[in-house]
Amino acid sequence: MPAWKTVAIVGVGLIGGSIGLALRARKLAQRIVGIGRREETLKTAQRLGALTDWTLNLSQGVGDSELIVVCTPVEQIPQHVLAAAGACPAGALITDAGSTKQTILAALNGTLDRTARFIGSHPLAGSEKQGPAEANAELFVGRTVVVTPTRRNSKQDFRDVEAFWRALGADVIQMTPAAHDRRLAASSHLAHLVAAALADAVRPADHPLTAGGFRDTTRIAAGDPELWTQILLDNRQNVLRALEPFERSLAAMQKALKSGSRAQLKRILTTAKIKRDALGS
Amino acid sequence: MPAWKTVAIVGVGLIGGSIGLALRARKLAQRIVGIGRREETLKTAQRLGALTDWTLNLSQGVGDSELIVVCTPVEQIPQHVLAAAGACPAGALITDAGSTKQTILAALNGTLDRTARFIGSHPLAGSEKQGPAEANAELFVGRTVVVTPTRRNSKQDFRDVEAFWRALGADVIQMTPAAHDRRLAASSHLAHLVAAALADAVRPADHPLTAGGFRDTTRIAAGDPELWTQILLDNRQNVLRALEPFERSLAAMQKALKSGSRAQLKRILTTAKIKRDALGS
Repeated sequence: MPAWKTVAIVGVGLIGGSIGLALRARKLAQRIVGIGRREETLKTAQRLGALTDWTLNLSQGVGDSELIVVCTPVEQIPQHVLAAAGACPAGALITDAGSTKQTILAALNGTLDRTARFIGSHPLAGSEKQGPAEANAELFVGRTVVVTPTRRNSKQDFRDVEAFWRALGADVIQMTPAAHDRRLAASSHLAHLVAAALADAVRPADHPLTAGGFRDTTRIAAGDPELWTQILLDNRQNVLRALEPFERSLAAMQKALKSGSRAQLKRILTTAKIKRDALGS
Repeated sequence: MPAWKTVAIVGVGLIGGSIGLALRARKLAQRIVGIGRREETLKTAQRLGALTDWTLNLSQGVGDSELIVVCTPVEQIPQHVLAAAGACPAGALITDAGSTKQTILAALNGTLDRTARFIGSHPLAGSEKQGPAEANAELFVGRTVVVTPTRRNSKQDFRDVEAFWRALGADVIQMTPAAHDRRLAASSHLAHLVAAALADAVRPADHPLTAGGFRDTTRIAAGDPELWTQILLDNRQNVLRALEPFERSLAAMQKALKSGSRAQLKRILTTAKIKRDALGS
């Protein structure tokens, strides 16, 4: 099990807070420095045991850190990685927790100093919940973290970031940034769009007539609109493409309903059930 | 608290089984007769405590019952209500648990003997789970049951069926069959269609990249395709109309993604979040 003297977490919300709690619970770091914009959030995170120290000053916060995890919204990640790379000790490893990867890597490619050790990560552990008060030390246990090394990364970079996520209980897989964004558009971003459209479409007057099914189907629509606007816009080409098979399937069911084609409707519902059953509850 | 000497349950799956368990747990019925097509299912329900007796013969099963609850798939409900009405004691109350109401009422109107006491019910307590093994005595606690009286029903019919569902812990609201079907198309049937299209659209190869959000959003797609084919076809005009605001919302987000319109996208995601937050977790 690896251990770190000082880990810095930039952005201490659900993900950043959970990283802090997991590091503390597993005694993996002596110091955990939280970096953010709002004192109140950082104080909450410290009170909950996710941080040993905190600061509003990123350069100061990463000054002694061997490991820096940037957990801010996707549009801010490049600037925070650059700032961290300019202020951290030589040899420190920097990673992130952004839900998209291509734009971040493209922004850093060329601007980031060649000696800086940055490798992209995306822990598939988000939720509609927000903030350090929702964080928990077990958030990453059994979850998948996608790591997206590029040519600039050494094998050691990958091994180090893999050891970090594994130490928190996660499984690590690697993928190119392009493959990550294309596949996550289907497996995650599309579901957000669909859940939001459904939550938007049903009149609150009909809410008393909803049950568990509607609640489940729309739950992620409660996610932070600003975070999701950034994710969806950042990955919009892939999201638009991921919408196509969804729209085809919906249109086929619509056609079956219009024509009263029982066999066609049942065929699609059966395929959907088989696929969903394969996923487990 | 009302009590019944003999209650018959026609169709002992998740809903029928839960009614039996709830009646037993609350000591509301001396005998609970399960009626079905498959011995195995009925034996399971009896072993789990949902039934005191069972039979494959509907006429026999309802012969001594004061209350008969028909919990079969929507297309079979009219024939089972008619059969029950022809064999039950005079004055027995018959209700159902079908997810649609207009077609059932229309089929019974005219064919059902004028002296038969049938009143339609729809407990909003379904799930993607099936069968008596998934049943539980608390399924109806805090849930809403929509009761759809028509001109043929007396106030006493409504009071009796209301007392039944309340005794199981549910809240009862009343509505016309037409209003029920129109509103449930939006609050329930639409979500099933959308969840199925999403489950169908995502390649199983991308399943390892899904997380809780995708699982929640697609959970109900695991529901029984035959039951849902019947519900969606039965209520297809309303379901097609309920699809319209969903498609408008999705198209508006698609347009915002294509044009990169941040404000427009965030506006829709914000509206969706406000509506979803109003519903609770």
